[in-house]
Amino acid sequence: MTRKSEQACWVGFDLGGTKMLAAVFDGRFRLIGTAKVKTKGQDGLRAVLSRVSATIRAALAEARVPAGRVAGIGVGFPGPVDPERGIILAAPNLGWRNVPLRRVLERRFRCRAIVANDVDAGTYAEYRFGAARGARSVLGVFPGTGIGGAFLYEGRLIRGRRVTCMEFGHVTVEPGGRRCGCGRRGCLEAVASRLAISAEAAAAVYRGEAPGLAREAGTDLADIKSGTLAKAIRAGDRVVERIVRDAAGRLGDAIGGAINLLAPDVVVLGGGLVEALPRLFLHEVRRAAERKAMAPFAGSFRVATARLGDLATALGAAALAADAADAGGRTAR
Amino acid sequence: MTRKSEQACWVGFDLGGTKMLAAVFDGRFRLIGTAKVKTKGQDGLRAVLSRVSATIRAALAEARVPAGRVAGIGVGFPGPVDPERGIILAAPNLGWRNVPLRRVLERRFRCRAIVANDVDAGTYAEYRFGAARGARSVLGVFPGTGIGGAFLYEGRLIRGRRVTCMEFGHVTVEPGGRRCGCGRRGCLEAVASRLAISAEAAAAVYRGEAPGLAREAGTDLADIKSGTLAKAIRAGDRVVERIVRDAAGRLGDAIGGAINLLAPDVVVLGGGLVEALPRLFLHEVRRAAERKAMAPFAGSFRVATARLGDLATALGAAALAADAADAGGRTAR
Repeated sequence: MTRKSEQACWVGFDLGGTKMLAAVFDGRFRLIGTAKVKTKGQDGLRAVLSRVSATIRAALAEARVPAGRVAGIGVGFPGPVDPERGIILAAPNLGWRNVPLRRVLERRFRCRAIVANDVDAGTYAEYRFGAARGARSVLGVFPGTGIGGAFLYEGRLIRGRRVTCMEFGHVTVEPGGRRCGCGRRGCLEAVASRLAISAEAAAAVYRGEAPGLAREAGTDLADIKSGTLAKAIRAGDRVVERIVRDAAGRLGDAIGGAINLLAPDVVVLGGGLVEALPRLFLHEVRRAAERKAMAPFAGSFRVATARLGDLATALGAAALAADAADAGGRTAR
Repeated sequence: MTRKSEQACWVGFDLGGTKMLAAVFDGRFRLIGTAKVKTKGQDGLRAVLSRVSATIRAALAEARVPAGRVAGIGVGFPGPVDPERGIILAAPNLGWRNVPLRRVLERRFRCRAIVANDVDAGTYAEYRFGAARGARSVLGVFPGTGIGGAFLYEGRLIRGRRVTCMEFGHVTVEPGGRRCGCGRRGCLEAVASRLAISAEAAAAVYRGEAPGLAREAGTDLADIKSGTLAKAIRAGDRVVERIVRDAAGRLGDAIGGAINLLAPDVVVLGGGLVEALPRLFLHEVRRAAERKAMAPFAGSFRVATARLGDLATALGAAALAADAADAGGRTAR
């Protein structure tokens, strides 16, 4: 028996602040085409939306799939969205507010679309196809410029009524501490995000304590990326290693706190920084989380790194689009 | 049409550290009998279990219900339980470990039984019959000797694989701060539980700053109960009022942190301290939680006090027993 969904195709879209990626999947979620371009948010909303459509069409062309065979499009976006109405609520770096992305895509491609938070989508992908496959409950934590979180319980993503939730980067870890981008103090993001790490590492370069990183990047934050930090550590920059280990430990401590509340079976760590330094992150996060977890939870969870890499958000968004279609298209999970 | 469950009765049991309460409900969860006695944990496990059975029989006698009409028994217990196997995992104040309470009750009463955490049960009761009726998602917070928490999402209590979760009293609010009963430092419980408040209030009595409380209770912690604190505040003890308001604000701050993760639609505050001072707690918790909640969540939740009082745990446990019977008795929700 061939199910209709095996003939249909699904498009997953990762709409990031610097790049966008369209991926086409067959009915069994095998990748059959991709396209990737720069987002260029400075060109304004209309130009970006045109680029989204063009990138989807390019991926469909690569997959040799006519637009008519697309059963649904799922978009993952790095910011708060309203999954019910398919709206990007705010995109601080792009200056957008209340962008009805679902409606735009449904009109342009004449198929169903859903809009999800990117970490929700990535965690869902890891649950369906990756490191947390079939787990009863999953906490996803993706440190990047910020630190995104997602919680999935018995197959369902936990969400607010009109907005995605799990703002893991804004767990308070130092009351009255360092100022965070959100305007409050002492958020995890202010001490353990890639941006916070890069800022500390740049200061170390400036002080002459990180010769490896000085060769690779210098003191410009914009040049200190995940791969650069990994290279500097491999080149022997002890100070850089200590900075990253400290941040990973802070992350693990906050994860331990979440374990005391939610008792997930699996914690999935993802994002570029974890991909660049998987063993370091696994080690430090496990150690700190086990120390922080209360007795009933110690040993009750495993920590894993994400397996789906760059494709996770697009794949998860496509799978959520397929779920929404199965549920009659009323709502995304 | 009369459903079978309308003829059946359900027993809810609140097994507290100082008292136990059995309540009998008809098929529509109307109360038809109760019995309440002291727990007297110092008599040992066997004696307490006998007392549990006798108290259930006393409530059934009051309700004029023969044991054969009991369709199920639900027990709420103030500590970590394994809801799947129906086991009390630990009862620090009573010195118990791994008590197979479900099996004991199923043998004695020849009906299905379930064992739940008391705050899970109380929050479930408020969702089914009380202050959070029908809400999409509910955070329950019950400050008492400790501070219990529960989270309910689309009708399901969030739980760990082998143990209840939401250890809300052990959210870290002061890294490196006051020592908590759990052995770690800076837990919410160490600054905002009824016990922490009573300890601060006793010190205020000792310093001569709380004449009202001095008349009511003195400096013995065991005498400074929720009602006593409320009386002292009404009698004009400003220092006591400030201590309680500070604690309620700390509680609200931690609740705001949980809102940034879980975005509940309703926060239900319960327990004796909140019952004694509902307006004070509502005001301080709302204020602190709104301040702590990030922009997308501010205004997205309401804070309510529990409506079901002393009966909440028993009623919720009875309803969970009925759900488990509906689901084929395989597992409690």
